[in-house]
Amino acid sequence: MSYVEELCKRAKMASTDLVSLPTEKKNAALHTAASLMRLKSAEILSANDIDIANGRARNMPESLLDRLMLTEERIKGIAEGLDQVVSLPDPIGEILDDFDRPSGIHISKVRVPLGVVGIIYESRPNVTADAFAICLKSGNVAVLKGGSDAIESNKAIVRILRQALLENGVNEDAVNLIESTDRKDTEEFMQMRQYIDVLIPRGSAGLIRAVVNESRIPVIETGSGNCHIYVDSEADFNKAIPIIINAKTQRVGVCNAAESLVVHSAISSAFLPLLGKAMKEHGVSLRADERSLLLLPGSESADETDFGKEYLDYILSVKTVDSLDEAIAHINKYHTGHSDCIITENTASAERFLNEVDSACVYVNASTRFTDGFEFGFGAEIGISTQKLHARGPMGLKELTSYKYLIRNTSCKTGSVRASVTQKL
Amino acid sequence: MSYVEELCKRAKMASTDLVSLPTEKKNAALHTAASLMRLKSAEILSANDIDIANGRARNMPESLLDRLMLTEERIKGIAEGLDQVVSLPDPIGEILDDFDRPSGIHISKVRVPLGVVGIIYESRPNVTADAFAICLKSGNVAVLKGGSDAIESNKAIVRILRQALLENGVNEDAVNLIESTDRKDTEEFMQMRQYIDVLIPRGSAGLIRAVVNESRIPVIETGSGNCHIYVDSEADFNKAIPIIINAKTQRVGVCNAAESLVVHSAISSAFLPLLGKAMKEHGVSLRADERSLLLLPGSESADETDFGKEYLDYILSVKTVDSLDEAIAHINKYHTGHSDCIITENTASAERFLNEVDSACVYVNASTRFTDGFEFGFGAEIGISTQKLHARGPMGLKELTSYKYLIRNTSCKTGSVRASVTQKL
Repeated sequence: MSYVEELCKRAKMASTDLVSLPTEKKNAALHTAASLMRLKSAEILSANDIDIANGRARNMPESLLDRLMLTEERIKGIAEGLDQVVSLPDPIGEILDDFDRPSGIHISKVRVPLGVVGIIYESRPNVTADAFAICLKSGNVAVLKGGSDAIESNKAIVRILRQALLENGVNEDAVNLIESTDRKDTEEFMQMRQYIDVLIPRGSAGLIRAVVNESRIPVIETGSGNCHIYVDSEADFNKAIPIIINAKTQRVGVCNAAESLVVHSAISSAFLPLLGKAMKEHGVSLRADERSLLLLPGSESADETDFGKEYLDYILSVKTVDSLDEAIAHINKYHTGHSDCIITENTASAERFLNEVDSACVYVNASTRFTDGFEFGFGAEIGISTQKLHARGPMGLKELTSYKYLIRNTSCKTGSVRASVTQKL
Repeated sequence: MSYVEELCKRAKMASTDLVSLPTEKKNAALHTAASLMRLKSAEILSANDIDIANGRARNMPESLLDRLMLTEERIKGIAEGLDQVVSLPDPIGEILDDFDRPSGIHISKVRVPLGVVGIIYESRPNVTADAFAICLKSGNVAVLKGGSDAIESNKAIVRILRQALLENGVNEDAVNLIESTDRKDTEEFMQMRQYIDVLIPRGSAGLIRAVVNESRIPVIETGSGNCHIYVDSEADFNKAIPIIINAKTQRVGVCNAAESLVVHSAISSAFLPLLGKAMKEHGVSLRADERSLLLLPGSESADETDFGKEYLDYILSVKTVDSLDEAIAHINKYHTGHSDCIITENTASAERFLNEVDSACVYVNASTRFTDGFEFGFGAEIGISTQKLHARGPMGLKELTSYKYLIRNTSCKTGSVRASVTQKL
């Protein structure tokens, strides 16, 4: 049996132990992990030094080195994250439904863990501890495949997490790191459908596309966000401008940042000059279609590919439309189904937009930046799903669960057998 | 653009119309479809005659010809199925959650259709109408790829369904049949991730495996059922025998039929002779492991492969174990995660079994045959999911839905912008 298969098989076996692990044990392990993280920060930092040195030797750009780098402060942040998950309610065991049937059976629908969650991610080592915490609290075994850039940091962190499990009498295999950096092993990992229940890629659009294409394990697509803001003919400009500034510039490299502005032609001559001024003040350059360009002198002209782009930068595309219908059609064509917003004072238009834009999160007069597990009150987040199967939008603890039906015979005298034969199977 | 891509693209476009289609329109279309099905039964029967003649010419076995064959009676049954879906509650628009956040936004979580549901199935033409009804009522566009054996019947049925949509002012593209029987077109269909939201295979284990392996669209695995019954050391034999008879013999060709018996060694010498007699009376042959075989003289001996087999026939494998732990481990190793049952009077053992057996439906003293959308009270069923992602167990209307978050700004004075920058994306 190969290294990867053996690891995945052990993970699957550990999932049985986690199904009914008491909340107190999960919390104790998380708490210990947080303490050990602080206590052993020197060990993590020296491992991280190796990754950083290797990165520099490979001429890794400064922005990536910054993502990769750990500091005492950042390790404290990771430990705090672990402690925060302790305070969240345990989702496992919740009775979702409970009913009798005329046939004499009683059915309970109960929340259970998914089982084994695979996570493929890039260079940020904090994901290692975050993902472990969310998986453990939701009763799931985590199999982690981090970026090879961060391999030494990840190994050090996982060693500490496993020690925390051991110290609390929890199966160490509740968290597993694929230590190989061989591309072939990642490919093999994505075929392990018999052991892994779901695979969540976290990272660039390229990584996510590769996982979707290659995986035989069910994948939850996360994080790709070409978010739109539509300024309607009945928009209040005093709302529009601050929302666009917030959505575009508060943090440009994140999936819930706005990437494209759609504006109604009835107000474009009044609105676009205001927009141009505000964006200039915030260092944002515009890529405008032909009609918008007339009102945004000095901006660059957009081509067709601009509307489908997630810039993750101080750039915003601008498109003029003649109706709400055209705005909705444009957004549904170019967006990634993440977050989109309408600015309007017209309730009917707002309701149509909410209904017809096919995104995880649809906003009226509010910034797309709110699409986030913490802002939604979930207390933790493993990613933002842009697909419709299973979970959509911010994914917290509950989104990492499944359910099962428990069926009990309601009579103590006889067993329950099915009377009707008719069945459409 | 290819035939398949064009069809899938049209389906995707139609999904926008279906999102907010009023319940009355859906019901009217379903009702018309039922009436037309009865009215035009001759048209369907003569199409079916062609399929049957082609099947005979290709020496199709009688059992498959029977599955393929339509009669006036069966068409009436299909029409009744359509009418039944009219009476079910419309799941779309249900508010699943609704809350304010301190940041000043109001979040509603609302049930929405999945969008476009692809269904790949084998020769039973009734699935064509059933799948259409469940998809339409749950606001989903259906793209159907039936078996090539049933192509003429399916074409006739879909022509009638589309007429029913048209007569009620509903977009005809709410139901689509891939009329090509070229294997390449099916392969292309399974790549249409940009248009199809979920793919559900219905049919043999081979078909399901092929779809899981080839599809880039998220798949819901259905219908593979290697169901176990475990007779515990504290079993009441008066419950065990009728339940096993029901689960094994009421209908052998279905996914919720029992395929394997696991028996505790403490009671095997008292129980297995009773079982042997009952199974003999019902024409069931046994495949017993070494220890069981001693108590079941004349039975065949089981090899390792028997325990993993879904016989779909009058055959039952038998395995003796020495503990509840061993029983649970055996079942979790060989089952398909569909339905498993414990026969016991011991509540603690029952609870452990319910908790630790990792199946969609786990039973205490009740037949696995109850795993069925109608028996569960869902009123309709598109299949029985054996995976943990999205839906598990019988899938009715609600299981064909997703949700979206609608976020409204709670102040009428200002727009909502996010204050905190911290975010783990």
